[in-house]
Amino acid sequence: MRFDGREPLQLRPIHIDTNFLKHPEGSVLISVGDTRVICTASIEERVPPFMRGEGKGWITAEYSMLPRATETRNIRESSKGKVSGRTMEIQRLIGRALRAVVDLEAIGERTVWIDCDVIQADGGTRTASITGAFVAMAVALNGLVEKKAMARFPITDFLAATSVGILADGQPVLDLNYVEDSSAAVDMNVVMTGNGEFVELQGTGEESTFSRAQLAKMLEAAETGLLELFEKQRAALGEAISGKIDNRRNK
Amino acid sequence: MRFDGREPLQLRPIHIDTNFLKHPEGSVLISVGDTRVICTASIEERVPPFMRGEGKGWITAEYSMLPRATETRNIRESSKGKVSGRTMEIQRLIGRALRAVVDLEAIGERTVWIDCDVIQADGGTRTASITGAFVAMAVALNGLVEKKAMARFPITDFLAATSVGILADGQPVLDLNYVEDSSAAVDMNVVMTGNGEFVELQGTGEESTFSRAQLAKMLEAAETGLLELFEKQRAALGEAISGKIDNRRNK
Amino acid sequence: MRFDGREPLQLRPIHIDTNFLKHPEGSVLISVGDTRVICTASIEERVPPFMRGEGKGWITAEYSMLPRATETRNIRESSKGKVSGRTMEIQRLIGRALRAVVDLEAIGERTVWIDCDVIQADGGTRTASITGAFVAMAVALNGLVEKKAMARFPITDFLAATSVGILADGQPVLDLNYVEDSSAAVDMNVVMTGNGEFVELQGTGEESTFSRAQLAKMLEAAETGLLELFEKQRAALGEAISGKIDNRRNK
Amino acid sequence: MRFDGREPLQLRPIHIDTNFLKHPEGSVLISVGDTRVICTASIEERVPPFMRGEGKGWITAEYSMLPRATETRNIRESSKGKVSGRTMEIQRLIGRALRAVVDLEAIGERTVWIDCDVIQADGGTRTASITGAFVAMAVALNGLVEKKAMARFPITDFLAATSVGILADGQPVLDLNYVEDSSAAVDMNVVMTGNGEFVELQGTGEESTFSRAQLAKMLEAAETGLLELFEKQRAALGEAISGKIDNRRNK
Amino acid sequence: MRFDGREPLQLRPIHIDTNFLKHPEGSVLISVGDTRVICTASIEERVPPFMRGEGKGWITAEYSMLPRATETRNIRESSKGKVSGRTMEIQRLIGRALRAVVDLEAIGERTVWIDCDVIQADGGTRTASITGAFVAMAVALNGLVEKKAMARFPITDFLAATSVGILADGQPVLDLNYVEDSSAAVDMNVVMTGNGEFVELQGTGEESTFSRAQLAKMLEAAETGLLELFEKQRAALGEAISGKIDNRRNK
Amino acid sequence: MRFDGREPLQLRPIHIDTNFLKHPEGSVLISVGDTRVICTASIEERVPPFMRGEGKGWITAEYSMLPRATETRNIRESSKGKVSGRTMEIQRLIGRALRAVVDLEAIGERTVWIDCDVIQADGGTRTASITGAFVAMAVALNGLVEKKAMARFPITDFLAATSVGILADGQPVLDLNYVEDSSAAVDMNVVMTGNGEFVELQGTGEESTFSRAQLAKMLEAAETGLLELFEKQRAALGEAISGKIDNRRNK
Repeated sequence: MRFDGREPLQLRPIHIDTNFLKHPEGSVLISVGDTRVICTASIEERVPPFMRGEGKGWITAEYSMLPRATETRNIRESSKGKVSGRTMEIQRLIGRALRAVVDLEAIGERTVWIDCDVIQADGGTRTASITGAFVAMAVALNGLVEKKAMARFPITDFLAATSVGILADGQPVLDLNYVEDSSAAVDMNVVMTGNGEFVELQGTGEESTFSRAQLAKMLEAAETGLLELFEKQRAALGEAISGKIDNRRNK
Repeated sequence: MRFDGREPLQLRPIHIDTNFLKHPEGSVLISVGDTRVICTASIEERVPPFMRGEGKGWITAEYSMLPRATETRNIRESSKGKVSGRTMEIQRLIGRALRAVVDLEAIGERTVWIDCDVIQADGGTRTASITGAFVAMAVALNGLVEKKAMARFPITDFLAATSVGILADGQPVLDLNYVEDSSAAVDMNVVMTGNGEFVELQGTGEESTFSRAQLAKMLEAAETGLLELFEKQRAALGEAISGKIDNRRNK
Repeated sequence: MRFDGREPLQLRPIHIDTNFLKHPEGSVLISVGDTRVICTASIEERVPPFMRGEGKGWITAEYSMLPRATETRNIRESSKGKVSGRTMEIQRLIGRALRAVVDLEAIGERTVWIDCDVIQADGGTRTASITGAFVAMAVALNGLVEKKAMARFPITDFLAATSVGILADGQPVLDLNYVEDSSAAVDMNVVMTGNGEFVELQGTGEESTFSRAQLAKMLEAAETGLLELFEKQRAALGEAISGKIDNRRNK
Repeated sequence: MRFDGREPLQLRPIHIDTNFLKHPEGSVLISVGDTRVICTASIEERVPPFMRGEGKGWITAEYSMLPRATETRNIRESSKGKVSGRTMEIQRLIGRALRAVVDLEAIGERTVWIDCDVIQADGGTRTASITGAFVAMAVALNGLVEKKAMARFPITDFLAATSVGILADGQPVLDLNYVEDSSAAVDMNVVMTGNGEFVELQGTGEESTFSRAQLAKMLEAAETGLLELFEKQRAALGEAISGKIDNRRNK
Repeated sequence: MRFDGREPLQLRPIHIDTNFLKHPEGSVLISVGDTRVICTASIEERVPPFMRGEGKGWITAEYSMLPRATETRNIRESSKGKVSGRTMEIQRLIGRALRAVVDLEAIGERTVWIDCDVIQADGGTRTASITGAFVAMAVALNGLVEKKAMARFPITDFLAATSVGILADGQPVLDLNYVEDSSAAVDMNVVMTGNGEFVELQGTGEESTFSRAQLAKMLEAAETGLLELFEKQRAALGEAISGKIDNRRNK
Repeated sequence: MRFDGREPLQLRPIHIDTNFLKHPEGSVLISVGDTRVICTASIEERVPPFMRGEGKGWITAEYSMLPRATETRNIRESSKGKVSGRTMEIQRLIGRALRAVVDLEAIGERTVWIDCDVIQADGGTRTASITGAFVAMAVALNGLVEKKAMARFPITDFLAATSVGILADGQPVLDLNYVEDSSAAVDMNVVMTGNGEFVELQGTGEESTFSRAQLAKMLEAAETGLLELFEKQRAALGEAISGKIDNRRNK
């Protein structure tokens, strides 16, 4: 039994509130236990300079935490005047992950801006961000399809992320909260498609190492959690949008 | 009748959710119509260098908007690497306003950090921030009193803010939303104490001017709205804390 | 009697040297007591990107202090690599105030850059900047009219600014110098047109508050001072330019 | 057969020149094919503020490319005034990887600064940096042991890194050069200890995905290459230092 | 005859107004023709960290131009957020030059901050800055001697600077104004002591070169101008301070 | 005899490795004693905005040191987020010096980017950079001539640089190493063409001064060293390129 009463392979309670804000083309508030992230998707009718004229779209992400998302107050990155390495790493990961399930040609020369703002942090903010951002992006892109601004539905599969780890006692666990994450020997983030293919695997021994056998156990644990996350996304998106995603998967 | 069906001197619906987040010493989610701001108060056990050794506390504020708080996406100030003039002006105003109703000597050498993060903007974000931040600060400081970390209750009066303006047709109105604010000829922010004293008056003709008579009308309108805001704050804080504030006012 | 021998409603000695520098289209050195500010107006033959194609002009201001304008040396903002909140607030105020008395359509797609550089500071630098910048701007814009680069004379009224305050002893005073400003309970900046309309009112209780009655007294004091400032501007500009301003006012 | 004539599981030629520079405590020039990186290790007799008083050491890394390390000239990060997300990600990875094989308590309150400067880039600069930096660090830390500044030899195992990938045609390959890296569907960096334990696994589908079976093949390929890299490190370090590392591994 | 009617070896008119500002310990307004620079000297009662505990003083300089010191408006360095290479070069030169004639041990652990702010530019701003800053510094340091804060008078000689050049037609000229400076083939700044020793020589062929013979002619021209500048400094400082400088020179 | 056994007018051993890197259009590794600098020349097919449409080329330089080029580790300028005054001064010098021997019209609207990266520093890094950069630039520009991308060979003379100084004991010496440079009373950098004309002279008394006679001795010493440097450049470039330079010199 874990610190917060969960089984080793049990996710925390997941809630996805779709259309949480009125201005963005897509928005959700996702809660994974006490971790709460506002994810929005904004459509811009052009691509960055390095992509102009290629007829393809782009997806880029920004990530931030409110100063008191955490136990002690963090200095705002806007006050420091620069973005930390951790933030950059996370926002590159989110953008890269989402691009793996989007048909960028179908989008045309548009940019989807993903913003993930953590309002409360309790571990797993980057995986919650990916899982929530997928839903916000699907709503925003579906909106363009509805408005006939796009010929083909551009999302080719579901995409979600979770963390797995090995605690100091050697136990593999799913969906680490902050206390577990701080003390884990190994921490791995897994981003997967609805079809069970990996998009991103990031495993790190924190002043520690892990074997092939431990890797296998962690990947299994991740898969269990991801299946549940895909169900939550499906419910949050509703049948209409989920059906369109399924259509593209099966092709 | 106004654009959104309100009377000229009618506030938008106000909601103040106290203890909205689990980590900060004080936190609220305030809604003023569609404007929604997360306000937190954090206690730091020291003061900035320029105040050390004076035996007094300090209150400072930061303000930010999520990129999609607005109709079109704003570039994050952390990405730009600098804070805009507008943001600086607002955070200086919030800090200054709150300091007017706090007995800084009672606080001792501590800093109260106020963070106002606008998650949805529809006009009046700075006045909503002040009104919400007052409640978050009262909860946080009361917590220190409860823990016996402070001898005297340090808040000396209620404090709230609202905007008033003169529309292009010359009509004075209370609590401008974004559409009204954009087209108003004159815009004034009024910060007032529960005793009806001004703390800050900022009136601006936007490529326009205003007369003494118009000033008088705007101040009257502001007062009407502020009385209602004080009632909302009182309800959000509950009888125990409100009573302590009343005690200090009457002295 | 005040610290420096003045009556409560007496301005400090005012001097406005027009055409102080040889390069700018308009320039003045304004002295308000020991406060000395170089104000220049520069014409740029285009507007900022957000205004292109609208057929209107723009007026923007920058403000700075020499490091030893003050009693102790200030670190240069160029060395710090960023502009302080106070500076931003002041430069936004100067630009906004001047725009209220300029017919931006008459200017056409041009920007007037106002630079206010304080070479000696003794309180009231922002109000001296506005008063001096108005004169520099009038000279620069009149130059364009003289050169037939502009069809209509674009300044629609005089504009000046002063400060009023309430000292710790409750006395309302006009045109605070640095010593008074530092100890005043309430400080208010008033920007007014020649016709006696307000353009900007900024009243602040410094860890203090003020009543309606005190507000009224301060506004009266400000008006006294502003009448004198308009006379100084008129003398500095000469009859020809002053007459053109009067012509536009009366329409 | 690959673009440059190699077999799928063949590394490029590896050279490690130890003590390449005269000033640093440890330095190497590592070549992996045409990729050439100068790696230095510098000892600082203190730790960063967040670690003071814990009696432990710290290892941190910085990574940079000369502007013409690449086919077309890159703008210097010092000229841009900020470090890119890619650079931050790489330097965090290098530091984290090295810390996994160092007994930080044995080091005492010292920082090892690793600098990896790429003078010529042809793919795999981050893995070459880790492999080279390990050698530079071992030389520097051994120097402290030789001077009796440290009681215990602090390196607990060999550490090297390589990349593996899946080309567009589905073929798994080892040690991708720039041309292969640009076109690979999947790219994975593997950091491993001499004992065959993983320290870091970073697999990314570049607008693509990968299956469990492909993961297994890539890990096997990586292992082949890493065994060869450990031999190169052993040769570059010489018997004395390699023996000390073996001693700590076996405990 | 030159563009402005001067003889080849004739300086422009020089004026040095001592005690131009009320706050700084030393201040002058220097005019060299139309070039006008405010130079101030400020005393700080400590030295920079790298000099603490050595019992010696330090002299450092900052240089800036008002935006409209020049024909067309320059962007403020504080707005750009960084100081240009030209500015850095000039401020390093000013500080280095002044340190050559100051007995840093006599000063004790104090910093003299020199600020040179160009309010009007017409060529030769860096040499005017050095010449003016010397006078401001002498006044400030003499003030400390007068207050008995310093045992020995610390200035060991006069110091002034001028420019010489070779025009496109091969003619050597003294004290170039902006028009001459822009078109000169060779430009040389010479900083010299009252005793006729060089402190700094900076000769630059602007897409051109110069011979030994031309160098000799330029140095002669510089000497002529410098003798006149020393007389102006002597007059600006008055007999009392000049005499103290002479006393130290003769030892 | 000097610290390192050299005669007063003896250079340190010089090596110039041409084509040190594979990507740049021109590259060398230059060693002057223990000072080692990688110099590259990159051709960009456009000029900076301020030169567009003039039909002329531009040459600009950047200079940097690896963190452990020096005895103790320097903080990277990219980490500090700004380039130091010393770096700016050096890169401006390198660019200016090279432009003096290039026929910018022959180049056409192209920019030559020079990058000088010091990998090991032992005094004289700026003069070694100029001497090495000249060779890299000649190779790059000759490449364009070979490709018929340029009608005329654009380099009009050889160009090299060295330092001379006066030690504390009054002895004039050539090519100061770090130890000598740190303790020299006077330090002078001389940039000269193959024809013996000066391009740049920068002499600085370090809290010291120098006479005309000392200047003459230093210039003589510099000339001795420069003759040797021209021979090394000639050997590094080979007869073909050297011959083309000679051709342009003689015209």
